[in-house]
Order: sequence, then structure tokens, then C-alpha cells
Amino acid sequence: MYQAETFLRVRYAETDKMGVVYHGNFAQYFEVGRVEAIRGLGYSYKDLESDGVIMPVIEMNTKFVRPAVYDDLITIKTMLKDLPNDHRITFHQEVYNEEGKLLAFAKVVLYFMEAATMTKTTMPTQWKDGLASCFK
Amino acid sequence: MYQAETFLRVRYAETDKMGVVYHGNFAQYFEVGRVEAIRGLGYSYKDLESDGVIMPVIEMNTKFVRPAVYDDLITIKTMLKDLPNDHRITFHQEVYNEEGKLLAFAKVVLYFMEAATMTKTTMPTQWKDGLASCFK
Amino acid sequence: MYQAETFLRVRYAETDKMGVVYHGNFAQYFEVGRVEAIRGLGYSYKDLESDGVIMPVIEMNTKFVRPAVYDDLITIKTMLKDLPNDHRITFHQEVYNEEGKLLAFAKVVLYFMEAATMTKTTMPTQWKDGLASCFK
Amino acid sequence: MYQAETFLRVRYAETDKMGVVYHGNFAQYFEVGRVEAIRGLGYSYKDLESDGVIMPVIEMNTKFVRPAVYDDLITIKTMLKDLPNDHRITFHQEVYNEEGKLLAFAKVVLYFMEAATMTKTTMPTQWKDGLASCFK
Repeated sequence: MYQAETFLRVRYAETDKMGVVYHGNFAQYFEVGRVEAIRGLGYSYKDLESDGVIMPVIEMNTKFVRPAVYDDLITIKTMLKDLPNDHRITFHQEVYNEEGKLLAFAKVVLYFMEAATMTKTTMPTQWKDGLASCFK
Repeated sequence: MYQAETFLRVRYAETDKMGVVYHGNFAQYFEVGRVEAIRGLGYSYKDLESDGVIMPVIEMNTKFVRPAVYDDLITIKTMLKDLPNDHRITFHQEVYNEEGKLLAFAKVVLYFMEAATMTKTTMPTQWKDGLASCFK
Repeated sequence: MYQAETFLRVRYAETDKMGVVYHGNFAQYFEVGRVEAIRGLGYSYKDLESDGVIMPVIEMNTKFVRPAVYDDLITIKTMLKDLPNDHRITFHQEVYNEEGKLLAFAKVVLYFMEAATMTKTTMPTQWKDGLASCFK
Repeated sequence: MYQAETFLRVRYAETDKMGVVYHGNFAQYFEVGRVEAIRGLGYSYKDLESDGVIMPVIEMNTKFVRPAVYDDLITIKTMLKDLPNDHRITFHQEVYNEEGKLLAFAKVVLYFMEAATMTKTTMPTQWKDGLASCFK
């Protein structure tokens, strides 16, 4: 398994009139978590896009357990439990508040796609190499 | 079953550098769909909050089928397949583009909560009465 | 002068924990106002982009007079007081609530740019023709 | 003068189909800049709200010089040039990209307001004390 933790401060703009983070904004927290988890492999998502590959989100299943509050320093835990063997990649992600309580968790499925042709492709070798030691 | 359709124009701000709507923004489309579906019952979500009840989203499972593009007039279809019999309510929602193609669909579960005490409550009678004729 | 009015329902996602619309979200209201004002000329902003021209916002000066509240049906008034004679175009915009009270107003300056070369260009003839009768 | 620098990574969600950060999202960058500048005084904006004071944005004048791009580590510079002597406070803020180039700058005016009564108030003594040494 490969996993990484990212820290983020909740912004005022992310809250809604319920006084807590708008549920839809967790998608951004999960996105940041994946991007930072990937950065640790030495070939960023930005590099991937520069090389002509995009990763649209195909499925996102989220459970909201507790509200996230303004100014909290949240922890986003991103896990890759299996190495992808086709055009799909599945992340399991969790968000915790400063006290270590679970706020939300999600399963997020993305595709690897050639941007120019919009055809499916597979995980870049840079990531495969970087992940090899975690999945043997 | 109770169902309603809402129309919305995709904003520039809702797109991302992939050139299409950011996946996380569909949460807002679904929210607008639910709010407008409820308005048809003559007692709006705003009325509900004024009466001290809030409806946090507890679970949202979304599948993204096709991208939504800037300036498209999308249709949000909101369905209530069962009358809630406790503090939970489940909506099934779909988003279509101008050509009638399915872009995304979701199952969204919310709770009825007393805002003051944060305890679970049930669907307001105003909605129950409004929905009665659809579920007999 | 050319002017147009657009109507928009305030979304829950647009509010913040102050209980009213987050100030930064007015930028989206102004954007929608400009897009709809332009649509009335028969050549949409989307058409313009398809023809290779983009209009980045260069300056935005906003005054916030009263808060916008959830579920309010706001009116966005968009005014073009002068026909642009170079690469710049200036809009004056106002947002009103359902009771007709002024919530915010802004001056927004945008450039006409060729997307491919990122060089300045001028207003498309389609708009000039459409606007001619308003500025004689 | 009091000034502080904050660093932020541009999120994918913050970009639009122009391929760069949506202009309206700079309001969030400026907000984060102010919040972090204030945190340095030992009494956070969150503390202020807990004590019943809110700070609505009353005016925001922004000039956009260069686009901010995805994944860039931007610097937000927040300056307080004068100590407020009534209910108003004015910040001057600048955003720079990784190469140190200026992307945008703004003047932002906020009010100090008692949340319960929505009447104007003045800067909390905690901030005045913390700032005293910077303005003598």
C-alpha cells in the first residue's frame, strides 16, 4: 500500500451558513490530498498533464461523519491500496480534524486519458517505478 | 415517486483547466436541484431552516459519465423514490446536457436535524402532506 | 448606453458562516451578468472563445453595500456606458435583492485577447454591430 | 507598517477553462493572506468571531497583472500601512508566483462589527497591542 498525509487549513470561503464546511468542498480537499500524495513520487500531476495525460474523476463516493470547522488544520490521508492494472486508479481518502477525529472518507476512481485523443491509457511508468517498492 | 426538473446554465467559474466543469461543482448542481424540487411543495428549504431544522448531507455517491461544458443549459432531475420514515432522506439525481445526454448521477443521503440541539428529527409535515399524493 | 438585467437564485454553497453570501462569490454573479448581457447581442461569449478570442478580467473594483442572503432571487444589472475603442472594455454592474435594495456594485475592466498568440485585439464586429443602435 | 507573507499552492479546482486561476478566486487568496497575517498577532480571526465580532469586506479593488497557474506555490503579501482609528481597516495585498513575478494586487477595506447587534465597533485591543511596536 502507498499512503501519504497532507495538511490544510480550512478557509472562511469554504464554510456555508450552516457554520461548517460546505459538503461539496471536500472534493477539493480530496483533490489536494491526491496531488500531494503523487508529488511524493517525484513526478507531479502537473508533469503528467504537461506530458499529455489527464485524470478525470469518474466516481466519487463520500461519507460525511462530522463537520469540518473554520480555521481547523485538517489532515487528508490518501491511500492507494492496489496498483492499477488498466486505465483506472482508485484512491481511498480520509479527512481528520485537529483532534484526530474522522470527518469524512471517500473512494475516488479516476481514469488515465490521453488528452489529445481522449482515449484511455495506463499509469505512467514514473509512478509505477516510484510505487514498486510499496507493492511487492 | 416524486420528481422535478431544474435548469441551470454552466458558469465559467465552474470550469477548470481540463476545459469542462470541475467534478466537485456537481455537488452544487445537485443541491440546486433538491432545493428547487422541494420549493414545488410550497415549503422551501429556506422555510425549513427558518423553523430551526437543517439538512446536512451525510452521504453522496456520484458517477461522472460525460463532461459538462461551459454555457450549456443543463437539466437536473431530482427523484424521491421513497417517503422517509425516519431522520434520513435519500434523493436520486441526474444531470443532462442540452442534447439530453446523461452527464452524471448521484445518490444523496441527508439527515433532518434540529439546529439548536443537533438532534435528529423527521420530515416536516408540510412536505409529507405535499408528497402524500405521489406515494399512495 | 447598453444595459441588461439577469436574475439568479443565491445558492447555499455561495454563503459562508457569516450567514450571507461570501464576498468573493459576487465575482461569479458579475460574470453571469456580463455573459447574459452579451448573449442578447446574438453572439455569445462562448462563440467568441470558439473564434479564438478570450476576455481576461484585468481590474475589478467592488463595493459591498448590503449582504446577499440564501435563496434570494437577485437581479444583476450590467451596463456598458461607452463603446470600447481599443482592447479594453469596461462594465458597470450592480446587484439588487428581491426587495430592490442595492447589495453591491462594481466596475470591471476586461481585455480582448487572441488566445493563440496572447496579443491584444479589439471588440468583435458582431458585438459592435449589435451595439451600434445603443450608442449613436 | 505591519506586513506578513503567506504561501499557498494553487488548486486544480481554482483554475478555469482559460487554463489559469479564475479571477474571482483571488478573493480567497487575499482572505487567507489576511487571516494568516492576523494569526501572527496571537489573536486569530477565529478568536475574534468567538468573541462576537465579525469583519465583513466592504470594498475590494483588484488589479490582475499576470495569470496564476495550476500547482504554482504563490506568495501572498499582506500589508497594514496604517493603524485603524475607527470601524474601518484597510489592507494592501499582493500575490506573487514562484518566480517572484507580481500576479495581482488589491486594496481591501473591512469593517469591525458586533455580530449580535450589527453595529460598528473598533479594532480589538489584542491586535492594537500586538501592532503597537510596528506603528510608532
